[in-house]
Amino acid sequence: MAKNLNIGVIGAGRISRVHTPLLAQRVPGARVVKLCDLDLEKAHALGDALGIPVCQDFREIVNDPDIDAIFILTSTNAHVPITLEAAKAKKHIFCEKPIDHDADEIRRVIKAVEEAGVKFQVGFNRRFDRNFAQVRKSVAEGRVGDVHIIKITSRDPQAPPLNYVETSGGIFADMSIYDFDMVQFLSGAKVTEVSVFGANLINPEFAKYGDVDTCVISMKLDSGALAIINNSRQAVYGYDQRLEVFGSKGCVTADNEQSNNTMLFTADVVIQEKPLWFFLERYAEAFLYEDISFVESCVNDSPTLIDVRGGLSPILIADAAAKSCASGGIPVSVASE
Amino acid sequence: MAKNLNIGVIGAGRISRVHTPLLAQRVPGARVVKLCDLDLEKAHALGDALGIPVCQDFREIVNDPDIDAIFILTSTNAHVPITLEAAKAKKHIFCEKPIDHDADEIRRVIKAVEEAGVKFQVGFNRRFDRNFAQVRKSVAEGRVGDVHIIKITSRDPQAPPLNYVETSGGIFADMSIYDFDMVQFLSGAKVTEVSVFGANLINPEFAKYGDVDTCVISMKLDSGALAIINNSRQAVYGYDQRLEVFGSKGCVTADNEQSNNTMLFTADVVIQEKPLWFFLERYAEAFLYEDISFVESCVNDSPTLIDVRGGLSPILIADAAAKSCASGGIPVSVASE
Amino acid sequence: MAKNLNIGVIGAGRISRVHTPLLAQRVPGARVVKLCDLDLEKAHALGDALGIPVCQDFREIVNDPDIDAIFILTSTNAHVPITLEAAKAKKHIFCEKPIDHDADEIRRVIKAVEEAGVKFQVGFNRRFDRNFAQVRKSVAEGRVGDVHIIKITSRDPQAPPLNYVETSGGIFADMSIYDFDMVQFLSGAKVTEVSVFGANLINPEFAKYGDVDTCVISMKLDSGALAIINNSRQAVYGYDQRLEVFGSKGCVTADNEQSNNTMLFTADVVIQEKPLWFFLERYAEAFLYEDISFVESCVNDSPTLIDVRGGLSPILIADAAAKSCASGGIPVSVASE
Amino acid sequence: MAKNLNIGVIGAGRISRVHTPLLAQRVPGARVVKLCDLDLEKAHALGDALGIPVCQDFREIVNDPDIDAIFILTSTNAHVPITLEAAKAKKHIFCEKPIDHDADEIRRVIKAVEEAGVKFQVGFNRRFDRNFAQVRKSVAEGRVGDVHIIKITSRDPQAPPLNYVETSGGIFADMSIYDFDMVQFLSGAKVTEVSVFGANLINPEFAKYGDVDTCVISMKLDSGALAIINNSRQAVYGYDQRLEVFGSKGCVTADNEQSNNTMLFTADVVIQEKPLWFFLERYAEAFLYEDISFVESCVNDSPTLIDVRGGLSPILIADAAAKSCASGGIPVSVASE
Repeated sequence: MAKNLNIGVIGAGRISRVHTPLLAQRVPGARVVKLCDLDLEKAHALGDALGIPVCQDFREIVNDPDIDAIFILTSTNAHVPITLEAAKAKKHIFCEKPIDHDADEIRRVIKAVEEAGVKFQVGFNRRFDRNFAQVRKSVAEGRVGDVHIIKITSRDPQAPPLNYVETSGGIFADMSIYDFDMVQFLSGAKVTEVSVFGANLINPEFAKYGDVDTCVISMKLDSGALAIINNSRQAVYGYDQRLEVFGSKGCVTADNEQSNNTMLFTADVVIQEKPLWFFLERYAEAFLYEDISFVESCVNDSPTLIDVRGGLSPILIADAAAKSCASGGIPVSVASE
Repeated sequence: MAKNLNIGVIGAGRISRVHTPLLAQRVPGARVVKLCDLDLEKAHALGDALGIPVCQDFREIVNDPDIDAIFILTSTNAHVPITLEAAKAKKHIFCEKPIDHDADEIRRVIKAVEEAGVKFQVGFNRRFDRNFAQVRKSVAEGRVGDVHIIKITSRDPQAPPLNYVETSGGIFADMSIYDFDMVQFLSGAKVTEVSVFGANLINPEFAKYGDVDTCVISMKLDSGALAIINNSRQAVYGYDQRLEVFGSKGCVTADNEQSNNTMLFTADVVIQEKPLWFFLERYAEAFLYEDISFVESCVNDSPTLIDVRGGLSPILIADAAAKSCASGGIPVSVASE
Repeated sequence: MAKNLNIGVIGAGRISRVHTPLLAQRVPGARVVKLCDLDLEKAHALGDALGIPVCQDFREIVNDPDIDAIFILTSTNAHVPITLEAAKAKKHIFCEKPIDHDADEIRRVIKAVEEAGVKFQVGFNRRFDRNFAQVRKSVAEGRVGDVHIIKITSRDPQAPPLNYVETSGGIFADMSIYDFDMVQFLSGAKVTEVSVFGANLINPEFAKYGDVDTCVISMKLDSGALAIINNSRQAVYGYDQRLEVFGSKGCVTADNEQSNNTMLFTADVVIQEKPLWFFLERYAEAFLYEDISFVESCVNDSPTLIDVRGGLSPILIADAAAKSCASGGIPVSVASE
Repeated sequence: MAKNLNIGVIGAGRISRVHTPLLAQRVPGARVVKLCDLDLEKAHALGDALGIPVCQDFREIVNDPDIDAIFILTSTNAHVPITLEAAKAKKHIFCEKPIDHDADEIRRVIKAVEEAGVKFQVGFNRRFDRNFAQVRKSVAEGRVGDVHIIKITSRDPQAPPLNYVETSGGIFADMSIYDFDMVQFLSGAKVTEVSVFGANLINPEFAKYGDVDTCVISMKLDSGALAIINNSRQAVYGYDQRLEVFGSKGCVTADNEQSNNTMLFTADVVIQEKPLWFFLERYAEAFLYEDISFVESCVNDSPTLIDVRGGLSPILIADAAAKSCASGGIPVSVASE
C-alpha cells in the first residue's frame, strides 16, 4: 500500500455528510475514490461538490481493486452484509456503530474480519473527543490511581421522532451504547453486570415501542469498579455530555463545550453560552480525529483504536440493560463475548 | 414564650462543639442556659469558655422549667430515650440525625412528639447549605420544570476508623442517609424503590462488618422521577458534595466550595484550590442557618423545615438500600412510613 | 493587659454597624465596654441591642482607664483630633480609612502615634479578603517570581449621591485609595509615579465638584514593576473586585464572590449568580478578620498588619492621581512620606 | 469573477505555512494557483506538499492574468512595494499586518488601493477569534450599553530573540498593534490619546534597541470611553489573551482557550490545562475564518472586515505610544489619518 489510502464510501446520508468531506479534504493520506448510495441523487448531492465519482451499487466499491478501505455509513441493517463482502474482498473497514443489534451477527462479522486479516474500526467517535481522550490519558497514566467510580451524564438535546424510535433498537442500543463503550474505554475494564431503572417522562408514546426516554444505569466492572450513567432523550439546553473518573488517588472530570467562552454580566443576570447543540457540533473535531486515526492504522499497519471485537461488547451490555430495565431493575449479567 | 429561646444542650462531643458556640454567640434570640454531658470534664471544656453552666445528668435539663428547647447532640443510641422524656416535658427538640437506626423506634418518637405538640427538627444540615438551598428554590419555582433526574455525588475525604464503622449502622444509615434526605428535599417527592451496587475498594476490613465503602444507588420516586447517587468513603482531594436536578425545562447544578477562588498559572500547571476538607468546613454556615431556622420556628410557632416525620423516611430508604446492596442489587421497595 | 481587650467604639453610623457587632459577638478576646456618638439616639439604636453602654462625648471613652483600645468609626474629619487625644491617652487605635485627606495631618498622627508607642491600624479591610490575602501569600512565597504587572479592576455597583461626592475628597481619595493600598500590599513595593485618564460617563454632575466617575490609572513602582487600575462608580451587575499579579514565574488571579455557585441551564440561557452586591456583602468576612487581627496585635503586642504609616502612603498616591487626572494624564511623582 | 477565487501567495515563511494550507484545503471557493518565495527551496517545501506550482519572482504572480487575489505574506519591508504593484495590476490584496511601520507609506498604499478599486484586507486575525467576535457582537447589539472601559490583557508566552527585536519596529508596532486594533474594533470608536509606562523586566538587552518588554497603556477614545492594555513579552504559562468591555448596562468578558477542559483533583492540587501556547494554537481557527471572510468579500464584492484604512490607524496609535513611552508616560495625541 502506498502512503495514500484509497477509500470507497458506502452511504450518502447524514453521517456520510460528516465523514466524506473530512476524508476528501482534511484527513492526511486519504483519497475518496468513489461514493455510492442506493439513492443516486443523494450520492450526487454529496459527491459532486467534493469531486468524487458516484455509483449506486455498493459492489462496485467492494470489488474495485484500486480501493484499499471502505467506510460503511449506511443504515444499521446493511452493516453486516456489506462488511462480510468487504472482508472477503480484503478491504479495510470503517463501520458506523452499532455493527448490528444482534450479537450473533456481530460474532459473524468478527470471524470474517479476523479471518480476512483486515483492519476494522467501529465508529465510537467520542473516544476521540479531546476532553474524553484526555480523561482516558490521565487514567491510563495512573493519575487517579485505581478506578473506583465512573460517572457519565449523557443527554440528547431533542427526542427523536417516533418513526426513528420504532427502528432504533431502543435507547440502550441506540444511545446508551456510546456510554457503555466509554465506560470500558475510560476504565480499561469490562462491564459484568447491569441494573437499570427506566422511565417515560418526555414522550409517553415511546412506551408503545417498549422504549424509555429517561434512565439511570448502574454497572459492575470486572476490575471491581462501579459505574453509573444517566441518560435522557431531551435536555432542552443542548447536548449534555460530561463524565468523570474517580479513583484511589483522585478524580478527573470532563465538561461540555461551548461555541465561545464569553460571559455577559448585566443588572439582571450573568450569562454564559449554552453547551453546543448536538453531536455534529460537539464531536465535529472528534469525527476528524477518528478518521485520521483509522487512516493512519491502515497506512501504518497498526491496530485500530476500536477493533471489531470492540463492537460486540457494548451490544451485549445494551442487551443486558434492556432486560434489566424491562424487569424493573433486576441486575442482569452481561453475556460473554 | 418570650422573644428569646432558652436552650439546654445535651452532649458535649464533636457535633456539640459545632452547635453550642453558634447557639451561644451567633443565633439571634437563642440563649444556652445549660449544657450537660456524662463526661463532666468534656462539658466544662466546652461550657466554661462560653460561660454556660454545666451538669452531668440530662434530666436536669429536661426538667428545668426555664428551658424551652433542647438540643440532643449525643451518640445515636441516646436519641430516643432523651427525646421521649423531652417530649413528655413539653420541650421543643432539635435532634441530630439519625433519630435512630430502627424505624419502629422512630415511629415511637413520632407518636410522642406529635402527642406532645412540640416542635421537632432533625439535623439534616445540608438543606441549609446556600448552594443546595438555592437548587431547591429553583426547583420549587419551576425553573427546571418537571423533575426527571436527580444526581448526587457525595464522597467523604477520609474513611472513618474501623471502630466507627462497627457501630455506624453501615454506609447507608450513616452517610447516604443525608443524600436520601436531599433527594426528597430537592424533588419534593418520595423515594419508592432502591437498587444498590456496593463495593469494598478502599478498606477491605469494612467487609467484616457487612459494610461497603463505595456504592452507586439508583432510585425511583413516586413522582415518576429517577435519582442516582454515588458515594465513596474516601476522596483524597477533599469533601466532594455536588448535585444537580434535571427536568423538562432545564437543569440546575451546585458545586463544591473552596477556601478561596484564586488561580495560580505557572510554567508547569494551572492550579485552583481544592474543595473544602470536610463537613465542618463545608457546612459551617449551614449549621448556623440550621440553628437559626429551628430557633425561629420555636419562637414564631412555625413549622420546622424538617419535622419529626422527616427523620423516618431516610431511615426506611437506608434499610431498603442495605437490603438491595446485600442482595447484589435487587431492587427493594421502601417500606411505608 | 489581660487576655481580653476592652474596647471603646466612637461612632455609631454605617461602618460602626459593621464593626461593633463583630467586636461584641465574634472577635475572640474583644469586649466592647462603651459606644459613643454625638447622636445619642443612634448610639442607643446600636448599643442597646448589643448590651453596650452608650455615651455622647468621645472623651468619656478616651479618658476611661478601663479601655485599652479605641475604634474610630466617625466621619473622616473627626479622625485626626480623636486620634491625637487617644494617642495621648495611650490607647491602641483602629481608625477607618482614610486617616485624613491632608497628608500633613496624617504626618501629625504618625508622630503622635509613634511617640505614644500605641498600636495603630488603618481600616484597609480588603487586605483581609480571603482571595486577596491568598494572592498576597502566593506573591510573598515567590510563586509568581518577580512581580511585573499588577492589574486591579475595582468598580462600585452604584454611584453615590451628589451630596456624598461633594465631601468625599474625590474618587481617588475615596475609592481608588483602597486599590492604591492593595497595589503596595500585593507587591510589597512603593508606588513612585502615577498617570491617570479620567472621564465623566455615568453622572455628568460629578464634574461640578471637579470629580470623575470613571478612570484608568497607570503606576510605576520602586521595584520596577508596573500597575494598572480601572475604576468605575457604577457596575450595574454588582461590586466588581478582581485582581491579578503577573510575574516572571507566573500569574495569580482572584475573582469576585457570589451568594451561591449554582448554575441554571435552560432552553434560553445558562445563568450563574451575579457578584455580591457591595462591600458589606463582599467584605463581610474581611471585616471580621480585620478586627480579629487588630485585637490579636494589641493582646499579643505584635505589629498590626497596616500600621499608621500605612495610612499616609495611599493618600500621597491619591494626591498625585488627582493632579495627573486634572492635568489630562501627565505623570505625577508621588510625594515622599 | 467566477465563484472560485484564484489566489497567488507571496511568501513561504511561517505565516504562509498557516494561511496557504487553509487556502488550499479548507477555504470554500479558494484555489491557490501559485506560490512564490525568493528562497525557492522554501517555496517548494510548502507548495509541493499541497500540489501548488511555485516560482521565485513575485511579479510572475502579480502579472498572472488568471490570478484574482494576492496574499502578501512576506516580511514587512516588502509589503508596500508588492501592494503597490498588485493594486496597479487590479488584484485583490490580503496583506499581513503591519502594512508598514511608516504611516506615510501606508497612506501611499491607501491611495493606490482606493484608486485601483480592489479589495484589501489587513491581517488582524484576532477579530475572527470566536470569543472576541462574540464580545464585539454583544457590544454592537448594545448589550453592555454605552462603552465606558475596554480592558485588554495581551502577553506572549516567550520573548522573541534579540535579532527579531532589532527589526521588529518595537513592542508597540509589533505586538501592541493588535490590541490597538482590537480596542477600536470592540468599541467602534477611535483612539485619540495614549499614555504609556514601559519597563525592561524580562530581558534588559531589549533596551539596547530602545525597546521595552513590559508596558501598561492608557487610552482615550473619541466616544469618551477609556481603554487600558497591559502587555508582556513573556508569560511563562502560555499565551494570555483576555479582554472585556464594560459599559453602562453591563460587562462582557472573553477568556483564554485550553487544549481541553478536563480538571484533575488529587490529594495535592486541583489542576486544569494551561492556556494554549501561542498564536498558532490560539488563533488557528481565527486564521481560517479570516481567510474565509476575505475570499467571500472578493467573491461577493462586499467590503472586507478590515479594509486598507484599517491598517493605518493602529500604526498611528503605535507611533503615539512609542513617543509616550519614550517620554516617560506623557500623554500623546494620535496623529490624524
